[in-house]
Amino acid sequence: MLLSKINKSAFGTEIIDIHQSSLRRIALCLQYDGSSYCGWQRQINALSVQEVLEAALTKLNNCHPVITFAAGRTDAGVHAAAQVVHFDTDNLIPAHRWASALNGYLPSSIRVYEATQVPSNWHACYSAIYRRYRYTVLNSRQPNLFLAPYSWHRYKDTLDECIMRRSMGKLVGEHDFSAFQRAGSSRSHSITTIQDMKVQRHGELIVLEIQASGFLYGMVRLIVSQLVEVGAGRLSEFEFERRWRSKHRSEINEAAPAQGLCLVQVGYPQKVFSTTSINYDFTSFLI
Amino acid sequence: MLLSKINKSAFGTEIIDIHQSSLRRIALCLQYDGSSYCGWQRQINALSVQEVLEAALTKLNNCHPVITFAAGRTDAGVHAAAQVVHFDTDNLIPAHRWASALNGYLPSSIRVYEATQVPSNWHACYSAIYRRYRYTVLNSRQPNLFLAPYSWHRYKDTLDECIMRRSMGKLVGEHDFSAFQRAGSSRSHSITTIQDMKVQRHGELIVLEIQASGFLYGMVRLIVSQLVEVGAGRLSEFEFERRWRSKHRSEINEAAPAQGLCLVQVGYPQKVFSTTSINYDFTSFLI
Repeated sequence: MLLSKINKSAFGTEIIDIHQSSLRRIALCLQYDGSSYCGWQRQINALSVQEVLEAALTKLNNCHPVITFAAGRTDAGVHAAAQVVHFDTDNLIPAHRWASALNGYLPSSIRVYEATQVPSNWHACYSAIYRRYRYTVLNSRQPNLFLAPYSWHRYKDTLDECIMRRSMGKLVGEHDFSAFQRAGSSRSHSITTIQDMKVQRHGELIVLEIQASGFLYGMVRLIVSQLVEVGAGRLSEFEFERRWRSKHRSEINEAAPAQGLCLVQVGYPQKVFSTTSINYDFTSFLI
Repeated sequence: MLLSKINKSAFGTEIIDIHQSSLRRIALCLQYDGSSYCGWQRQINALSVQEVLEAALTKLNNCHPVITFAAGRTDAGVHAAAQVVHFDTDNLIPAHRWASALNGYLPSSIRVYEATQVPSNWHACYSAIYRRYRYTVLNSRQPNLFLAPYSWHRYKDTLDECIMRRSMGKLVGEHDFSAFQRAGSSRSHSITTIQDMKVQRHGELIVLEIQASGFLYGMVRLIVSQLVEVGAGRLSEFEFERRWRSKHRSEINEAAPAQGLCLVQVGYPQKVFSTTSINYDFTSFLI
Protein backbone atom coordinates (compact mmCIF):
# COMPACT_ATOMS: atom_id res chain seq x y z
CA MET A 1 0.00 0.00 0.00
CA LEU A 2 1.40 3.35 -0.99
CA LEU A 3 0.56 6.12 1.44
CA SER A 4 1.54 9.72 1.32
CA LYS A 5 1.31 12.57 3.77
CA ILE A 6 1.99 16.27 3.75
CA ASN A 7 5.04 17.18 5.76
CA LYS A 8 5.02 20.78 6.94
CA SER A 9 8.33 21.92 8.25
CA ALA A 10 10.94 24.59 7.96
CA PHE A 11 11.85 23.00 4.63
CA GLY A 12 8.49 23.90 3.17
CA THR A 13 5.51 21.73 2.39
CA GLU A 14 6.38 18.45 0.73
CA ILE A 15 4.34 15.44 -0.20
CA ILE A 16 6.35 12.44 0.85
CA ASP A 17 6.09 8.69 0.69
CA ILE A 18 5.13 7.28 4.09
CA HIS A 19 7.12 4.11 3.35
CA GLN A 20 10.30 6.15 3.73
CA SER A 21 9.38 7.48 7.14
CA SER A 22 11.33 5.00 9.28
CA LEU A 23 14.22 6.36 11.37
CA ARG A 24 17.14 7.51 9.24
CA ARG A 25 20.68 8.36 10.27
CA ILE A 26 22.13 11.62 8.99
CA ALA A 27 25.82 12.53 9.16
CA LEU A 28 26.93 16.16 9.22
CA CYS A 29 30.32 17.65 8.48
CA LEU A 30 30.63 20.96 10.31
CA GLN A 31 32.98 23.77 11.20
CA TYR A 32 33.00 25.85 14.33
CA ASP A 33 34.98 28.64 15.86
CA GLY A 34 35.51 27.32 19.37
CA SER A 35 36.30 30.75 20.89
CA SER A 36 32.90 31.26 22.45
CA TYR A 37 32.05 27.68 23.43
CA CYS A 38 32.90 25.44 26.36
CA GLY A 39 33.79 22.77 23.81
CA TRP A 40 31.80 20.27 21.81
CA GLN A 41 30.12 18.49 24.69
CA ARG A 42 27.04 19.65 26.56
CA GLN A 43 27.68 21.13 29.99
CA ILE A 44 25.25 22.37 32.57
CA ASN A 45 26.50 25.91 33.10
CA ALA A 46 28.18 26.80 29.84
CA LEU A 47 27.28 26.95 26.17
CA SER A 48 28.52 24.05 24.08
CA VAL A 49 28.51 23.48 20.33
CA GLN A 50 26.41 20.34 20.91
CA GLU A 51 23.71 22.29 22.76
CA VAL A 52 23.46 24.94 20.02
CA LEU A 53 23.45 22.35 17.22
CA GLU A 54 20.85 20.15 18.91
CA ALA A 55 18.61 23.17 19.53
CA ALA A 56 18.72 24.00 15.81
CA LEU A 57 18.13 20.36 14.83
CA THR A 58 15.17 20.10 17.19
CA LYS A 59 13.56 23.18 15.64
CA LEU A 60 13.94 21.69 12.17
CA ASN A 61 12.75 18.30 13.36
CA ASN A 62 9.25 19.62 14.13
CA CYS A 63 10.34 20.16 17.75
CA HIS A 64 11.09 16.48 18.34
CA PRO A 65 14.30 16.33 20.40
CA VAL A 66 17.44 15.35 18.50
CA ILE A 67 20.54 13.84 20.09
CA THR A 68 23.90 14.12 18.33
CA PHE A 69 27.10 12.07 18.49
CA ALA A 70 30.42 13.59 17.45
CA ALA A 71 33.62 12.04 16.14
CA GLY A 72 35.77 13.94 18.63
CA ARG A 73 35.07 15.89 21.79
CA THR A 74 36.90 19.16 21.32
CA ASP A 75 37.75 21.11 24.47
CA ALA A 76 36.75 24.67 25.33
CA GLY A 77 38.22 27.10 22.82
CA VAL A 78 39.34 24.41 20.36
CA HIS A 79 38.18 24.88 16.76
CA ALA A 80 36.90 22.38 14.22
CA ALA A 81 37.30 22.67 10.48
CA ALA A 82 35.68 19.30 9.83
CA GLN A 83 33.93 17.82 12.86
CA VAL A 84 31.66 14.89 12.02
CA VAL A 85 28.35 14.36 13.83
CA HIS A 86 25.41 12.02 13.36
CA PHE A 87 21.80 11.95 14.55
CA ASP A 88 18.64 9.95 13.90
CA THR A 89 15.40 11.40 12.63
CA ASP A 90 12.08 10.32 11.19
CA ASN A 91 11.79 13.58 9.32
CA LEU A 92 11.64 12.82 5.63
CA ILE A 93 13.34 15.86 4.24
CA PRO A 94 16.14 14.91 1.84
CA ALA A 95 19.41 14.37 3.69
CA HIS A 96 21.43 16.92 1.75
CA ARG A 97 18.96 19.69 2.59
CA TRP A 98 19.76 19.56 6.31
CA ALA A 99 22.99 21.51 5.72
CA SER A 100 21.58 24.74 4.34
CA ALA A 101 18.45 24.52 6.50
CA LEU A 102 20.54 24.15 9.67
CA ASN A 103 22.77 27.07 8.70
CA GLY A 104 19.66 29.25 8.75
CA TYR A 105 19.16 28.40 12.44
CA LEU A 106 22.77 28.35 13.60
CA PRO A 107 24.94 31.29 14.67
CA SER A 108 27.71 32.28 12.24
CA SER A 109 30.27 30.59 14.53
CA ILE A 110 28.90 27.16 13.51
CA ARG A 111 28.50 26.17 9.85
CA VAL A 112 27.32 22.86 8.46
CA TYR A 113 29.33 22.01 5.40
CA GLU A 114 27.53 18.94 4.20
CA ALA A 115 24.83 16.47 5.26
CA THR A 116 24.36 12.96 3.98
CA GLN A 117 22.42 9.82 4.90
CA VAL A 118 24.48 6.97 6.37
CA PRO A 119 23.60 3.36 7.28
CA SER A 120 21.84 3.00 10.64
CA ASN A 121 24.82 1.13 12.11
CA TRP A 122 27.31 3.83 11.10
CA HIS A 123 28.59 5.91 14.03
CA ALA A 124 30.41 9.27 13.82
CA CYS A 125 32.73 8.26 16.67
CA TYR A 126 32.98 4.46 16.63
CA SER A 127 33.18 4.07 12.86
CA ALA A 128 36.06 6.54 12.63
CA ILE A 129 39.51 5.11 11.94
CA TYR A 130 41.41 8.29 12.61
CA ARG A 131 41.18 11.94 13.68
CA ARG A 132 43.64 14.56 12.55
CA TYR A 133 44.41 17.71 14.53
CA ARG A 134 46.41 20.72 13.52
CA TYR A 135 48.21 23.04 15.92
CA THR A 136 49.36 26.46 14.71
CA VAL A 137 52.21 28.35 16.39
CA LEU A 138 52.98 31.94 15.43
CA ASN A 139 56.70 32.28 16.05
CA SER A 140 57.18 36.00 15.52
CA ARG A 141 58.31 38.91 17.62
CA GLN A 142 55.09 40.82 16.98
CA PRO A 143 51.56 39.58 17.58
CA ASN A 144 49.16 39.24 14.68
CA LEU A 145 45.59 40.38 14.88
CA PHE A 146 44.30 38.04 12.20
CA LEU A 147 46.05 34.95 13.52
CA ALA A 148 45.50 35.57 17.23
CA PRO A 149 42.24 33.58 17.52
CA TYR A 150 43.75 30.55 15.77
CA SER A 151 47.33 30.31 16.94
CA TRP A 152 49.70 30.31 19.89
CA HIS A 153 51.99 33.31 19.80
CA ARG A 154 55.51 32.28 20.85
CA TYR A 155 57.54 35.44 20.54
CA LYS A 156 60.51 34.95 22.84
CA ASP A 157 62.39 32.09 21.22
CA THR A 158 63.02 31.21 17.61
CA LEU A 159 61.86 27.62 17.51
CA ASP A 160 63.91 25.00 15.66
CA GLU A 161 61.32 23.07 13.68
CA CYS A 162 63.85 20.46 12.57
CA ILE A 163 64.51 19.34 16.13
CA MET A 164 60.77 19.43 16.82
CA ARG A 165 60.14 17.23 13.78
CA ARG A 166 62.76 14.71 14.86
CA SER A 167 61.34 14.47 18.39
CA MET A 168 57.80 14.24 17.10
CA GLY A 169 58.69 11.47 14.64
CA LYS A 170 59.48 9.08 17.45
CA LEU A 171 55.91 9.26 18.71
CA VAL A 172 54.58 7.56 15.57
CA GLY A 173 53.34 4.01 16.24
CA GLU A 174 51.47 2.28 19.04
CA HIS A 175 52.58 3.48 22.45
CA ASP A 176 51.33 4.05 25.95
CA PHE A 177 50.91 7.81 26.05
CA SER A 178 50.04 8.12 29.76
CA ALA A 179 52.48 11.03 29.98
CA PHE A 180 50.27 13.03 27.63
CA GLN A 181 46.93 12.42 29.31
CA ARG A 182 45.22 15.08 31.37
CA ALA A 183 43.52 14.17 34.62
CA GLY A 184 39.83 13.46 34.34
CA SER A 185 39.96 10.95 31.51
CA SER A 186 37.47 8.09 31.54
CA ARG A 187 39.60 5.84 29.32
CA SER A 188 40.54 2.43 30.68
CA HIS A 189 44.04 2.53 29.15
CA SER A 190 46.44 5.03 27.58
CA ILE A 191 47.55 3.09 24.53
CA THR A 192 46.86 4.59 21.13
CA THR A 193 48.41 4.57 17.69
CA ILE A 194 49.81 7.75 16.20
CA GLN A 195 49.57 7.19 12.46
CA ASP A 196 51.14 10.34 11.11
CA MET A 197 52.87 13.51 12.25
CA LYS A 198 54.05 16.59 10.48
CA VAL A 199 55.90 19.76 11.46
CA GLN A 200 56.29 22.48 8.88
CA ARG A 201 57.56 26.01 9.06
CA HIS A 202 56.13 28.61 6.71
CA GLY A 203 57.91 31.84 7.57
CA GLU A 204 56.77 32.80 11.04
CA LEU A 205 54.22 30.02 11.26
CA ILE A 206 54.93 26.54 12.54
CA VAL A 207 52.18 24.06 11.79
CA LEU A 208 52.08 20.74 13.60
CA GLU A 209 49.74 17.96 12.55
CA ILE A 210 49.03 14.74 14.35
CA GLN A 211 46.83 11.91 13.19
CA ALA A 212 45.88 9.01 15.46
CA SER A 213 43.36 6.24 15.81
CA GLY A 214 42.25 7.94 19.00
CA PHE A 215 43.44 10.67 21.31
CA LEU A 216 43.79 10.77 25.07
CA TYR A 217 42.25 13.65 26.97
CA GLY A 218 44.35 16.79 26.34
CA MET A 219 46.97 14.79 24.41
CA VAL A 220 47.74 17.10 21.49
CA ARG A 221 48.13 20.23 23.60
CA LEU A 222 50.45 18.45 26.03
CA ILE A 223 52.58 17.10 23.17
CA VAL A 224 52.75 20.57 21.55
CA SER A 225 53.79 22.31 24.78
CA GLN A 226 56.66 19.84 25.19
CA LEU A 227 57.71 20.08 21.56
CA VAL A 228 57.83 23.86 21.78
CA GLU A 229 60.18 23.50 24.75
CA VAL A 230 62.35 21.20 22.64
CA GLY A 231 62.25 23.66 19.74
CA ALA A 232 63.25 26.50 22.05
CA GLY A 233 66.22 24.50 23.33
CA ARG A 234 64.96 24.39 26.91
CA LEU A 235 64.25 20.67 26.82
CA SER A 236 66.62 18.18 25.17
CA GLU A 237 65.38 15.66 22.64
CA PHE A 238 66.62 12.95 24.95
CA GLU A 239 64.71 14.31 27.93
CA PHE A 240 61.53 14.74 25.87
CA GLU A 241 61.69 11.09 24.86
CA ARG A 242 62.55 9.91 28.36
CA ARG A 243 59.55 11.77 29.77
CA TRP A 244 56.94 10.23 27.54
CA ARG A 245 58.49 6.77 27.48
CA SER A 246 58.60 6.75 31.29
CA LYS A 247 54.86 7.57 31.31
CA HIS A 248 55.25 10.16 34.05
CA ARG A 249 52.50 12.66 33.60
CA SER A 250 53.78 14.64 36.59
CA GLU A 251 56.79 15.95 34.62
CA ILE A 252 54.60 17.47 31.93
CA ASN A 253 52.77 20.39 33.45
CA GLU A 254 51.66 22.79 30.81
CA ALA A 255 49.31 22.37 27.90
CA ALA A 256 49.55 24.56 24.83
CA PRO A 257 46.57 26.98 24.72
CA ALA A 258 43.30 25.85 23.17
CA GLN A 259 42.96 28.45 20.42
CA GLY A 260 45.90 27.03 18.43
CA LEU A 261 44.21 23.66 18.06
CA CYS A 262 41.79 22.57 15.36
CA LEU A 263 40.20 19.24 14.44
CA VAL A 264 40.84 19.17 10.71
CA GLN A 265 39.84 15.71 9.55
CA VAL A 266 38.04 12.53 10.59
CA GLY A 267 38.68 9.40 8.57
CA TYR A 268 36.28 6.49 7.92
CA PRO A 269 36.77 3.22 6.05
CA GLN A 270 34.39 4.43 3.34
CA LYS A 271 34.12 7.96 2.02
CA VAL A 272 31.17 9.68 3.70
CA PHE A 273 31.18 13.22 2.32
CA SER A 274 31.77 14.55 -1.15
CA THR A 275 33.82 17.38 0.28
CA THR A 276 37.42 16.73 -0.61
CA SER A 277 39.08 19.57 1.26
CA ILE A 278 38.08 22.02 3.90
CA ASN A 279 39.83 25.30 4.33
CA TYR A 280 41.81 25.65 7.52
CA ASP A 281 45.35 26.65 7.08
CA PHE A 282 47.23 29.75 7.99
CA THR A 283 50.53 28.60 6.60
CA SER A 284 50.96 31.29 4.02
CA PHE A 285 49.50 34.12 5.99
CA LEU A 286 52.56 36.11 4.96
CA ILE A 287 52.80 39.14 2.77
CA MET B 1 71.94 74.56 30.62
CA LEU B 2 70.91 71.02 31.18
CA LEU B 3 67.48 70.66 32.68
CA SER B 4 65.63 67.55 33.59
CA LYS B 5 62.10 66.85 34.66
CA ILE B 6 60.16 63.91 35.94
CA ASN B 7 57.66 62.66 33.40
CA LYS B 8 54.81 60.76 34.99
CA SER B 9 52.79 58.86 32.46
CA ALA B 10 51.38 55.49 31.63
CA PHE B 11 54.92 54.48 30.76
CA GLY B 12 56.03 54.89 34.35
CA THR B 13 58.12 57.57 35.94
CA GLU B 14 61.13 58.60 33.93
CA ILE B 15 63.71 61.32 34.35
CA ILE B 16 64.14 62.87 30.97
CA ASP B 17 66.25 65.54 29.40
CA ILE B 18 64.23 68.70 28.81
CA HIS B 19 66.35 69.51 25.76
CA GLN B 20 64.66 66.63 23.92
CA SER B 21 61.18 67.81 24.66
CA SER B 22 60.42 69.57 21.37
CA LEU B 23 57.68 68.16 19.16
CA ARG B 24 58.55 64.81 17.66
CA ARG B 25 56.86 62.89 14.86
CA ILE B 26 56.10 59.21 15.48
CA ALA B 27 55.08 56.76 12.77
CA LEU B 28 53.03 53.68 13.62
CA CYS B 29 52.49 50.53 11.62
CA LEU B 30 49.20 48.97 12.63
CA GLN B 31 46.71 46.24 11.85
CA TYR B 32 42.97 46.32 12.27
CA ASP B 33 40.01 44.10 11.66
CA GLY B 34 37.67 46.48 9.87
CA SER B 35 34.52 44.44 10.60
CA SER B 36 33.30 46.62 13.42
CA TYR B 37 34.44 50.05 12.21
CA CYS B 38 33.02 52.62 9.81
CA GLY B 39 36.48 52.75 8.24
CA TRP B 40 39.69 54.54 9.09
CA GLN B 41 38.37 58.09 9.06
CA ARG B 42 36.50 59.80 11.89
CA GLN B 43 32.76 60.13 11.42
CA ILE B 44 30.19 61.81 13.59
CA ASN B 45 27.77 58.95 14.17
CA ALA B 46 29.89 55.85 13.81
CA LEU B 47 33.01 54.39 15.35
CA SER B 48 36.16 54.73 13.27
CA VAL B 49 39.64 53.27 13.73
CA GLN B 50 41.00 56.83 13.85
CA GLU B 51 38.73 57.78 16.74
CA VAL B 52 39.69 54.73 18.79
CA LEU B 53 43.40 55.15 18.06
CA GLU B 54 43.39 58.87 18.87
CA ALA B 55 41.55 58.23 22.14
CA ALA B 56 44.25 55.74 23.17
CA LEU B 57 47.03 58.10 22.06
CA THR B 58 45.50 60.97 23.99
CA LYS B 59 45.38 58.91 27.18
CA LEU B 60 49.04 58.02 26.79
CA ASN B 61 49.92 61.60 25.90
CA ASN B 62 48.96 62.85 29.36
CA CYS B 63 45.50 63.72 27.99
CA HIS B 64 46.85 66.18 25.44
CA PRO B 65 44.84 65.64 22.24
CA VAL B 66 46.62 63.77 19.46
CA ILE B 67 45.74 64.01 15.79
CA THR B 68 46.71 61.19 13.42
CA PHE B 69 47.29 61.04 9.66
CA ALA B 70 47.01 57.74 7.80
CA ALA B 71 48.58 56.52 4.56
CA GLY B 72 45.25 55.32 3.22
CA ARG B 73 41.62 55.88 4.16
CA THR B 74 40.13 52.42 4.30
CA ASP B 75 36.33 52.17 3.92
CA ALA B 76 33.86 50.64 6.35
CA GLY B 77 34.58 46.94 6.80
CA VAL B 78 37.93 47.01 5.00
CA HIS B 79 40.87 45.51 6.91
CA ALA B 80 44.45 46.65 7.26
CA ALA B 81 47.44 44.38 7.79
CA ALA B 82 49.90 47.27 7.63
CA GLN B 83 48.30 50.70 7.79
CA VAL B 84 50.79 53.51 8.44
CA VAL B 85 49.90 56.48 10.62
CA HIS B 86 51.83 59.40 12.04
CA PHE B 87 51.27 61.90 14.86
CA ASP B 88 53.20 64.60 16.67
CA THR B 89 53.86 64.66 20.37
CA ASP B 90 55.98 66.44 22.95
CA ASN B 91 55.89 63.38 25.16
CA LEU B 92 59.42 62.14 25.66
CA ILE B 93 58.82 58.45 25.95
CA PRO B 94 61.06 56.49 23.57
CA ALA B 95 59.43 56.08 20.16
CA HIS B 96 59.52 52.28 20.11
CA ARG B 97 57.63 52.07 23.40
CA TRP B 98 54.48 53.58 21.95
CA ALA B 99 53.61 50.27 20.28
CA SER B 100 53.24 48.05 23.33
CA ALA B 101 51.87 50.90 25.46
CA LEU B 102 49.16 51.65 22.89
CA ASN B 103 48.20 47.99 22.61
CA GLY B 104 47.37 48.10 26.31
CA TYR B 105 44.75 50.79 25.63
CA LEU B 106 43.40 49.51 22.31
CA PRO B 107 40.73 46.87 21.71
CA SER B 108 41.98 43.56 20.31
CA SER B 109 40.64 44.53 16.87
CA ILE B 110 43.43 47.13 16.54
CA ARG B 111 47.09 46.22 17.10
CA VAL B 112 50.12 48.44 16.74
CA TYR B 113 52.93 46.46 15.19
CA GLU B 114 55.75 48.94 15.44
CA ALA B 115 56.43 52.58 16.33
CA THR B 116 59.40 54.63 15.24
CA GLN B 117 60.47 58.27 15.15
CA VAL B 118 60.49 59.92 11.72
CA PRO B 119 61.69 63.36 10.49
CA SER B 120 59.23 66.16 11.16
CA ASN B 121 58.64 66.68 7.42
CA TRP B 122 57.80 63.01 6.85
CA HIS B 123 54.10 62.35 6.22
CA ALA B 124 52.33 58.95 6.37
CA CYS B 125 50.18 59.85 3.38
CA TYR B 126 52.17 62.36 1.29
CA SER B 127 55.55 60.65 1.65
CA ALA B 128 54.14 57.31 0.48
CA ILE B 129 55.09 56.19 -3.02
CA TYR B 130 52.65 53.31 -3.18
CA ARG B 131 49.88 51.44 -1.40
CA ARG B 132 49.22 47.78 -1.98
CA TYR B 133 45.82 46.16 -1.48
CA ARG B 134 44.87 42.51 -1.51
CA TYR B 135 41.44 41.18 -2.34
CA THR B 136 40.56 37.59 -1.40
CA VAL B 137 37.85 35.63 -3.21
CA LEU B 138 36.70 32.25 -1.91
CA ASN B 139 35.59 30.39 -5.02
CA SER B 140 34.06 27.29 -3.48
CA ARG B 141 30.65 25.70 -3.40
CA GLN B 142 30.54 25.69 0.40
CA PRO B 143 31.06 28.69 2.65
CA ASN B 144 33.94 28.76 5.10
CA LEU B 145 33.58 29.92 8.64
CA PHE B 146 37.21 30.91 9.10
CA LEU B 147 37.51 32.79 5.84
CA ALA B 148 34.10 34.48 5.89
CA PRO B 149 35.22 37.71 7.61
CA TYR B 150 38.13 38.16 5.18
CA SER B 151 36.87 37.05 1.80
CA TRP B 152 34.12 37.29 -0.79
CA HIS B 153 32.39 33.97 -1.23
CA ARG B 154 31.64 33.37 -4.94
CA TYR B 155 30.06 29.97 -5.05
CA LYS B 156 28.02 29.92 -8.24
CA ASP B 157 30.69 30.12 -10.93
CA THR B 158 34.14 28.62 -11.18
CA LEU B 159 36.23 31.67 -11.97
CA ASP B 160 38.93 31.53 -14.62
CA GLU B 161 41.89 33.24 -13.02
CA CYS B 162 43.93 33.19 -16.23
CA ILE B 163 41.43 35.39 -18.04
CA MET B 164 41.19 37.61 -14.95
CA ARG B 165 44.98 37.96 -14.91
CA ARG B 166 45.10 38.90 -18.57
CA SER B 167 42.38 41.54 -18.16
CA MET B 168 43.99 42.91 -15.04
CA GLY B 169 47.41 43.16 -16.67
CA LYS B 170 46.20 45.81 -19.09
CA LEU B 171 45.43 48.15 -16.19
CA VAL B 172 49.11 48.48 -15.30
CA GLY B 173 50.53 51.92 -16.13
CA GLU B 174 49.26 55.49 -15.92
CA HIS B 175 45.62 55.75 -16.93
CA ASP B 176 42.49 57.74 -16.29
CA PHE B 177 40.50 55.38 -14.09
CA SER B 178 37.26 57.45 -13.93
CA ALA B 179 35.31 54.26 -14.60
CA PHE B 180 36.52 52.87 -11.29
CA GLN B 181 35.77 55.87 -9.07
CA ARG B 182 32.82 55.91 -6.74
CA ALA B 183 30.72 59.02 -6.38
CA GLY B 184 31.73 61.31 -3.54
CA SER B 185 35.43 61.58 -4.32
CA SER B 186 37.15 64.89 -3.65
CA ARG B 187 39.98 64.25 -6.13
CA SER B 188 40.49 66.82 -8.87
CA HIS B 189 41.36 64.16 -11.48
CA SER B 190 41.12 60.40 -11.97
CA ILE B 191 44.60 59.68 -13.27
CA THR B 192 46.78 57.32 -11.30
CA THR B 193 49.54 54.80 -11.94
CA ILE B 194 48.99 51.13 -11.28
CA GLN B 195 52.47 49.80 -10.62
CA ASP B 196 51.80 46.11 -10.15
CA MET B 197 49.01 43.58 -10.28
CA LYS B 198 48.78 39.93 -9.40
CA VAL B 199 46.09 37.27 -9.60
CA GLN B 200 46.81 33.88 -8.10
CA ARG B 201 44.67 30.86 -7.48
CA HIS B 202 45.46 28.60 -4.53
CA GLY B 203 42.87 25.86 -4.62
CA GLU B 204 39.56 27.50 -3.84
CA LEU B 205 41.10 30.87 -3.09
CA ILE B 206 41.75 33.56 -5.64
CA VAL B 207 43.99 36.35 -4.41
CA LEU B 208 44.19 39.62 -6.31
CA GLU B 209 46.78 42.24 -5.48
CA ILE B 210 47.00 45.74 -6.82
CA GLN B 211 49.70 48.30 -6.13
CA ALA B 212 49.38 51.92 -7.18
CA SER B 213 50.80 55.34 -6.48
CA GLY B 214 47.34 56.30 -5.29
CA PHE B 215 43.83 54.93 -5.42
CA LEU B 216 40.55 56.55 -6.40
CA TYR B 217 37.61 56.27 -4.06
CA GLY B 218 36.29 52.67 -4.15
CA MET B 219 38.67 51.77 -6.99
CA VAL B 220 39.86 48.30 -5.93
CA ARG B 221 36.41 46.95 -5.14
CA LEU B 222 35.02 48.21 -8.45
CA ILE B 223 37.92 46.62 -10.37
CA VAL B 224 37.47 43.32 -8.50
CA SER B 225 33.72 43.17 -9.14
CA GLN B 226 34.34 43.60 -12.87
CA LEU B 227 37.19 41.10 -12.96
CA VAL B 228 35.02 38.51 -11.23
CA GLU B 229 32.42 39.00 -13.98
CA VAL B 230 35.18 38.45 -16.54
CA GLY B 231 36.36 35.33 -14.68
CA ALA B 232 32.81 33.97 -14.56
CA GLY B 233 32.45 34.45 -18.32
CA ARG B 234 29.61 36.96 -18.02
CA LEU B 235 31.72 39.88 -19.22
CA SER B 236 34.14 39.60 -22.13
CA GLU B 237 37.74 40.75 -21.85
CA PHE B 238 37.06 43.13 -24.69
CA GLU B 239 34.02 44.64 -22.97
CA PHE B 240 35.90 44.97 -19.67
CA GLU B 241 38.65 46.92 -21.41
CA ARG B 242 36.19 49.01 -23.39
CA ARG B 243 34.36 49.98 -20.20
CA TRP B 244 37.33 51.32 -18.32
CA ARG B 245 39.01 52.90 -21.32
CA SER B 246 35.77 54.73 -22.17
CA LYS B 247 35.72 56.10 -18.59
CA HIS B 248 32.01 55.47 -18.20
CA ARG B 249 31.38 54.93 -14.54
CA SER B 250 27.70 54.35 -15.23
CA GLU B 251 28.36 50.92 -16.75
CA ILE B 252 30.08 49.65 -13.62
CA ASN B 253 27.48 49.33 -10.93
CA GLU B 254 28.58 46.92 -8.28
CA ALA B 255 31.53 47.00 -5.92
CA ALA B 256 32.97 43.82 -4.44
CA PRO B 257 32.12 43.62 -0.71
CA ALA B 258 34.37 45.34 1.81
CA GLN B 259 35.38 42.33 3.91
CA GLY B 260 37.48 40.82 1.10
CA LEU B 261 39.74 43.88 0.95
CA CYS B 262 42.86 44.57 2.98
CA LEU B 263 45.54 47.25 2.87
CA VAL B 264 48.68 45.09 3.01
CA GLN B 265 51.57 47.45 2.37
CA VAL B 266 52.52 51.11 2.15
CA GLY B 267 55.81 51.96 0.46
CA TYR B 268 58.14 54.90 1.18
CA PRO B 269 61.36 56.02 -0.49
CA GLN B 270 63.28 55.05 2.66
CA LYS B 271 62.59 52.07 4.87
CA VAL B 272 60.61 53.25 7.89
CA PHE B 273 59.92 50.09 9.89
CA SER B 274 62.10 47.12 10.72
CA THR B 275 59.16 44.82 10.09
CA THR B 276 59.85 43.01 6.86
CA SER B 277 56.62 41.09 6.50
CA ILE B 278 53.21 41.18 8.08
CA ASN B 279 50.96 38.17 8.10
CA TYR B 280 47.86 38.51 6.00
CA ASP B 281 47.31 35.75 3.59
CA PHE B 282 44.71 33.06 3.34
CA THR B 283 46.12 31.47 0.24
CA SER B 284 46.86 28.08 1.67
CA PHE B 285 43.89 27.82 3.94
CA LEU B 286 43.42 24.33 2.53
CA ILE B 287 43.69 21.00 4.25
